Amino acid sequence: MYIENLCSAAKEAEIEIAQLSTKIKNQILLKSAKALLDNMENILKINEIDVKNAKENGVKAAFIDRLTLTPDRIKGMAQGLEEIAALNDPVGEFLYGKTLPNGLIIQQKRVPLGVIAIIFESRPNVTADAFGLCLKSGNAVVLRGGKEAINTNIAIVKIFKDVLKECGVNENAVQILEDTSHETANKLMKAHKYVDVLIPRGSARLINSVIENSTIPCIQTGIGNCHIFVDENGKIEDAINIIINAKTQRPGVCNAVETLLIHKNIAGNILPELGKQLIAKNVEIRGDETVNQYIPTSLKATEEDWATEYEDYIVAIKTVENIDEAIKHIGTYGTRHSECIITENYTNAQKFLNEIDAAAVYVNASTRFTDGGQFGFGAEIGISTQKLHARGPMGLKELTTTKYVIMGNGQVRE
Amino acid sequence: MYIENLCSAAKEAEIEIAQLSTKIKNQILLKSAKALLDNMENILKINEIDVKNAKENGVKAAFIDRLTLTPDRIKGMAQGLEEIAALNDPVGEFLYGKTLPNGLIIQQKRVPLGVIAIIFESRPNVTADAFGLCLKSGNAVVLRGGKEAINTNIAIVKIFKDVLKECGVNENAVQILEDTSHETANKLMKAHKYVDVLIPRGSARLINSVIENSTIPCIQTGIGNCHIFVDENGKIEDAINIIINAKTQRPGVCNAVETLLIHKNIAGNILPELGKQLIAKNVEIRGDETVNQYIPTSLKATEEDWATEYEDYIVAIKTVENIDEAIKHIGTYGTRHSECIITENYTNAQKFLNEIDAAAVYVNASTRFTDGGQFGFGAEIGISTQKLHARGPMGLKELTTTKYVIMGNGQVRE
Repeated sequence: MYIENLCSAAKEAEIEIAQLSTKIKNQILLKSAKALLDNMENILKINEIDVKNAKENGVKAAFIDRLTLTPDRIKGMAQGLEEIAALNDPVGEFLYGKTLPNGLIIQQKRVPLGVIAIIFESRPNVTADAFGLCLKSGNAVVLRGGKEAINTNIAIVKIFKDVLKECGVNENAVQILEDTSHETANKLMKAHKYVDVLIPRGSARLINSVIENSTIPCIQTGIGNCHIFVDENGKIEDAINIIINAKTQRPGVCNAVETLLIHKNIAGNILPELGKQLIAKNVEIRGDETVNQYIPTSLKATEEDWATEYEDYIVAIKTVENIDEAIKHIGTYGTRHSECIITENYTNAQKFLNEIDAAAVYVNASTRFTDGGQFGFGAEIGISTQKLHARGPMGLKELTTTKYVIMGNGQVRE
Repeated sequence: MYIENLCSAAKEAEIEIAQLSTKIKNQILLKSAKALLDNMENILKINEIDVKNAKENGVKAAFIDRLTLTPDRIKGMAQGLEEIAALNDPVGEFLYGKTLPNGLIIQQKRVPLGVIAIIFESRPNVTADAFGLCLKSGNAVVLRGGKEAINTNIAIVKIFKDVLKECGVNENAVQILEDTSHETANKLMKAHKYVDVLIPRGSARLINSVIENSTIPCIQTGIGNCHIFVDENGKIEDAINIIINAKTQRPGVCNAVETLLIHKNIAGNILPELGKQLIAKNVEIRGDETVNQYIPTSLKATEEDWATEYEDYIVAIKTVENIDEAIKHIGTYGTRHSECIITENYTNAQKFLNEIDAAAVYVNASTRFTDGGQFGFGAEIGISTQKLHARGPMGLKELTTTKYVIMGNGQVRE
């Protein structure tokens, strides 16, 4: 009954949230931002407990880093809410409208999705982002964060619930699962009676579990085994700059590059210098035989490397016969996130753009640009790698659906 | 391996289908229409086998009717394909484009979904519709029809495969499951490695089975427990005309009305005449106590009636205190398909349009208009009652997704 009660309360709140004016929603967002800052000391104290527990459980350093809040990170969360308040409200927009010959007026109106559940892992700032984006788009949200951040997440949600209450709005518009067991997460995935959309944010394992188990329509996000293919006549210097950026500017994120495909005819021109620069940035290189020849310190790549999203200072490199082999390789191992070709050949650029099946396809630019902020959408709730509903960075608009509004004066169908 | 082979062949064909020019796609559609007519005699002969088997298995008359092909129905299928050829090709449209301050060009392009699987029941004309709509939108399609129509469906798909071959196009762009067992259908629902989207068309039982079992993103279609609420000051004559149309013009379809909600203050004004007209059209009435009083031949409605999509000459009628009770009833029992208010009160009309959560919300018109053809979209693949991706009648555009196409000249992220 725990999940049922939590989700049905969110469903009830949603009816109210869907009808809130933009003005009230912005007030709630700005008050929430202020409340985060006002409660900073308390949040930091509670976060220390989570961090201490995680350390005692021997969790990895990168994980501890994502879990740890600092005054700057809390300021960042508050600023994020203020930025969401400044974005246009997508709800109520009319996308389409016409009058039929019989006088019937048909219009398509943008409306909230309803109740959105988000299952995420360690970073507590997702709690604030998700609340802000869901509220602004008129949705109620049910959050299930990782068990390591549970005390922090509860404290943050408590602040938002207090602001909602203070504004006279149903506080169940934001819910957090205090029970972080797998059993309860699995029950949440089956709550299609109350939850309209489920968004998993995290590892491939989490996302696969959701695909297997959820009865709620899902939006898959964020698995990025991204490729850069350097074509025979790509500009070598640009290629190296783009690769270094896409691999090392922030290796732990989904739009970082993981495998490089190098046209065999330019292997000798690019690999020695590329290898030198990657090694200077502490990137481990795993390559095929040709790569091992040109970059003597590189390791031997295995089949598994082509399929791996490292999210780390590691890159796989493979030489290919031609663009067709590159496209085929990406089709086999890619995760439909962000894929790039470096080329000066017009026909090959068009071929790559047309034939690669991915959320974002690039010519001569870093894959790191696949991001709601970079695309100019404001904040994002994730990057969809599926084809239904939304593909690529998802902002406020992607948290809405539409309904047809039809006005008549007695029309019947003949 | 059966499903894997069938679906992976469709996936391979899809790469080719996605790139076909509109001209070639239209040629295939027109040749397919002609081939249906040329093979009419053969199709009818094979359909007779299916009909004979179904009759021997004691299948209901309405089912036999949907299963049976006639020269006119085959002409209708051919005409449907010609109409799809005449529709605009949605593939390749650019929805959005801008140049970022750093010179990066970002554009959003409409592309096919990929491989679409459709699970449907008795009507063999779905085979032609689905093939036509999927082909025109650049998708490969895997069809799983009901076991009763299997010989007819195989014969029709064979005709389309022959046309594809004749046009030099991969014939696996249309696949039919010759094995119609439930086990194989369940395997199809798990083939997310090859199938991008699954569309179930049929009974609530089929759709619930898909929700429970599918690992492929789904679009739910067509469950319609639709309501008409006659408000206190609705025009009585219009209300009766609209109700008679919505209930009896074609009772077996999803946009027909199933439950009427009557404001208690006008029960005496509308129920006697409404009852008379419904009974004259052979509609069975199941009502609450007030309804039973005003329409003496009406039966007593049970809780189950409020939740039932009859798809038949039966209607449930309930009197309500006010619009709030009507909205609450629809929220509890509705299936988010098509809902209507009959009113002259501006505030109530707006309230109903805003607060009812459904694909189509009506003021003063028959729910029977929720239809791709009526909305002017051309043919439809179904009516989505879910919120992700598409809501309401789905035409060609709803069988596409988008991708971001990004063109740079060496840009890296700072």
